[in-house]
Amino acid sequence: MRRIRVGLAQINPTVGAIEANARLVLDWMERARAAGCDLVAFPELALTGYPPEDLLFKTAFIEANLRALADVARQSRGIKQYLPNYGVFDENRYFQSGTEAPVFVVGDTVLAANICEDIWYPTGPTTLQALAGAELVVTINASPYHAGKAQFREKMLATRAADDLVCLAFVNTVGGQDELVFDGQSFIFNEKGERIARGRAFEEDLVVADLDLDEIFRARLHDSRRRKEKLRAAEPTRISLPSLPLREKPKPPAHEIQALEPVEEIYQALVLGTRDYVTKIGYKHVVIGLSGGIDSALVAAIAVDALGAANVTGVTMPSPFSSLGTRRDAARLAKNLGIDMLRVPITGVLKAYKRALAAAFKGLKEDVTEENLQARIRGNYLMALSNKFGWLVLTTGNKSEYGAGYTTLYGDMAGGFAVIKDVPKMLVYALSRHVNSRAGRTVIPQSVFDRAPSAELRPDQTDQDTLPPYAELDAILQAYVEEDRGVPDIVAQGFAEETVRRVASMVARNEYKRRQGPIGVKITPRAFGRDWRLPIVNRFREP
Amino acid sequence: MRRIRVGLAQINPTVGAIEANARLVLDWMERARAAGCDLVAFPELALTGYPPEDLLFKTAFIEANLRALADVARQSRGIKQYLPNYGVFDENRYFQSGTEAPVFVVGDTVLAANICEDIWYPTGPTTLQALAGAELVVTINASPYHAGKAQFREKMLATRAADDLVCLAFVNTVGGQDELVFDGQSFIFNEKGERIARGRAFEEDLVVADLDLDEIFRARLHDSRRRKEKLRAAEPTRISLPSLPLREKPKPPAHEIQALEPVEEIYQALVLGTRDYVTKIGYKHVVIGLSGGIDSALVAAIAVDALGAANVTGVTMPSPFSSLGTRRDAARLAKNLGIDMLRVPITGVLKAYKRALAAAFKGLKEDVTEENLQARIRGNYLMALSNKFGWLVLTTGNKSEYGAGYTTLYGDMAGGFAVIKDVPKMLVYALSRHVNSRAGRTVIPQSVFDRAPSAELRPDQTDQDTLPPYAELDAILQAYVEEDRGVPDIVAQGFAEETVRRVASMVARNEYKRRQGPIGVKITPRAFGRDWRLPIVNRFREP
Repeated sequence: MRRIRVGLAQINPTVGAIEANARLVLDWMERARAAGCDLVAFPELALTGYPPEDLLFKTAFIEANLRALADVARQSRGIKQYLPNYGVFDENRYFQSGTEAPVFVVGDTVLAANICEDIWYPTGPTTLQALAGAELVVTINASPYHAGKAQFREKMLATRAADDLVCLAFVNTVGGQDELVFDGQSFIFNEKGERIARGRAFEEDLVVADLDLDEIFRARLHDSRRRKEKLRAAEPTRISLPSLPLREKPKPPAHEIQALEPVEEIYQALVLGTRDYVTKIGYKHVVIGLSGGIDSALVAAIAVDALGAANVTGVTMPSPFSSLGTRRDAARLAKNLGIDMLRVPITGVLKAYKRALAAAFKGLKEDVTEENLQARIRGNYLMALSNKFGWLVLTTGNKSEYGAGYTTLYGDMAGGFAVIKDVPKMLVYALSRHVNSRAGRTVIPQSVFDRAPSAELRPDQTDQDTLPPYAELDAILQAYVEEDRGVPDIVAQGFAEETVRRVASMVARNEYKRRQGPIGVKITPRAFGRDWRLPIVNRFREP
Repeated sequence: MRRIRVGLAQINPTVGAIEANARLVLDWMERARAAGCDLVAFPELALTGYPPEDLLFKTAFIEANLRALADVARQSRGIKQYLPNYGVFDENRYFQSGTEAPVFVVGDTVLAANICEDIWYPTGPTTLQALAGAELVVTINASPYHAGKAQFREKMLATRAADDLVCLAFVNTVGGQDELVFDGQSFIFNEKGERIARGRAFEEDLVVADLDLDEIFRARLHDSRRRKEKLRAAEPTRISLPSLPLREKPKPPAHEIQALEPVEEIYQALVLGTRDYVTKIGYKHVVIGLSGGIDSALVAAIAVDALGAANVTGVTMPSPFSSLGTRRDAARLAKNLGIDMLRVPITGVLKAYKRALAAAFKGLKEDVTEENLQARIRGNYLMALSNKFGWLVLTTGNKSEYGAGYTTLYGDMAGGFAVIKDVPKMLVYALSRHVNSRAGRTVIPQSVFDRAPSAELRPDQTDQDTLPPYAELDAILQAYVEEDRGVPDIVAQGFAEETVRRVASMVARNEYKRRQGPIGVKITPRAFGRDWRLPIVNRFREP
């Protein structure tokens, strides 16, 4: 019986930390060897970290990478490794497209590898490699997370495996890198398209499975006519390698991790994205302005899960417009989370600003200027605490606010990392409920859920003075931003034309703010980040 | 005699303003008709404005564009137009590559057009089209400015024209769009590679020249053997069109604009980039913090040239660390420029901040926290003036500061447009001297040039307490940022290794700040903008 034990090492490397990444690879290679794997695969660009972006233009970076690769290769006796370093995927800024889809003949086994994007196309290299005889195709990935993607990916891989009568081993990286988070959830499928192993979500893991290659041979015999016809078009490159030292060994443990519930999956993406950003840039401690509202409550809960309560400080910065309710809720939240809380009122500083600007503003009424000043004083307080204590400021704006521009530049947008900038407000509520339910107790007080959202920058203000109801705003933003739908199309979904136009116009007018905002975790198919390139000078008005 | 009069309309469209751009095209088409042109060419994506970026994903945008194109085509009786809308250039996010290089047979004349990038490759479509018989190749462009590019472009086009024995008409767009500025300077070359017309720099213009097609025929007769050999490889698409109504007409005026001196060219790029950004987003008036230093002096001078003195307000925001000299120089500069100046001291607000933070900072010494607070109070003042009066804040940081991170986020970086963010400090001095010399009088006081640069955030501070001398810093940054050279390479140029390493590390550590800064005019081959994609989480250290 021809049998191969394959291991997928879904590891969490750091961009640029080439030597540390090489040590990580060697460490997991040892674990794979100990688990009796014949072959271990690592994610795309595991040595450089992904995505390295413009570091790839640096000769020294490429050289360090190649040195590390040679070093890892030297130490991989007795185990086959798939660790291609750069190659064939469609990133024209950095890479040339590959023109070959090689298969490797290892003793009496035929293996192949391809990278990331390759697997997304139904007639891509996987088909070519399977037709050329590959029994196992390893596809190495750094596939950025968004909600729902893992399920889609899993269905697609099942289809590819069954279509091509090939075992598919999909290894994905894990970890946060700037605005991206990678979810792991590596899979192995057999030639029937059945999943035989799945790795953990958002954690490093070694996914191991035994593949029965004779099964594939038998399945293909039954399908030989169809395959021969296809084969005429295929011209694979065959590369022979020494045989694998296939040994008898005990059955590996079943490796079948349960998929996460959708809201928990998003929550964990936010936690890991935050933890990795903070720690990989070398910080330990974060500071968050606690308004008593739902957004800062959720961010604080995420921060505590990411870094531990001892590494999170809340700051309440009341003004005369802060209600008793929000002030009390901020304090309760801090207590429930077990975090320190500072109190720095803004009233005195606001008065000083008004005095200083009195001559310039003489005879003019108060307006949004004074509201923004309050937000900016708070931004300055948080940055001052950051400067003084070496804490990173986490900001608390959500995607609905970023989309509509309902934020103050240099005010509530001031900080290093915008944890929930890709989370629409309704999902902020869902995640906050989930915080309480996963904790099995009230972490975020019920009154925070019940109170109408308000920036509390003037008396009796609520968000809905300025914005459409959030349920409506979120649905319109999803259609307009994530799906690039036009106004008539969104109106046809049942929204008032005037509202849709107003939202579209808010999105366009506030691009300048978003461009100066901090990065944050991407959890939707299209975040306000690298995915989004709207010109600031833009006179296009939706027809 | 076969003769054709070609016109290049280098116009200044606005991204997204499709109807207004169509009117602009029709207006210049009339001018070309009045000048007796047989053919008029417009820049790349003249109807949408360039670059439209993600607007191209919107169906309504594409539809509006196609409607405008049909409309312009309908109104172009009696004149041939080259106004391809989207096509063949290498922007994989939006466009498919073209596979054809058509030539158009118009009566007994053979014409061809191609787009932008096509002309940069020696064996690109131009050669193919010339071999297929094209006598005139029109190349339509939106070629972003950087210093020195126009001269390079001109030499390259001369070479292409002579190589291919073809007349080359290169039309470029004009104007500012977000961080890009387009310089116009369209050219027409004859088949000997001689420039027979050049358009204005940084201004709209109609460049007209008569081409003697029989000359090309004669030149090619002498070169027929070489051409026939090449022709074997060429498979052009020939498209026949109705004859041009070639008429006898008087000679056009000579159109030979002098190229600008290098420093004047950069100055005009900054002026146009600033004017177009401010006006195209719908602002009229700008506000600038005047420190008495050279950077804010230069920005103010540029703003006055871009918008007029009546549309520029200076603000002096003294602290106890502001010297008498800088305060006096700020006032003198405002007077010399003829702009209004406000005075809003920061001392009272700074005291209020210190009082408010006293409990949190108890027992700790003053440090960079208090320096940053001063910069942030100033940023808040400017933003408050912006909010209250509808003025746009121009920031004054230069490329040396952005590169080294010698800036305060939300402080001196706060504003809508960073006029000189791509101008290294030594070039700031050169441009400032040029401001005085082109004005023929002292606009920027001599003492501003003579004083050692200082942020004036603590007593007796100078930039050189923190940074290497600017002459050195600028050279190192140019090699490291614009040319992607490694440390050993830069050390080999004669710089101290310790200094080079320090600068490289500053560049990496301060990416988070740059990412939140405003956009500004690109004038070098690589600006800190769309051109620059350094990860924020980045543990790579130069070897």
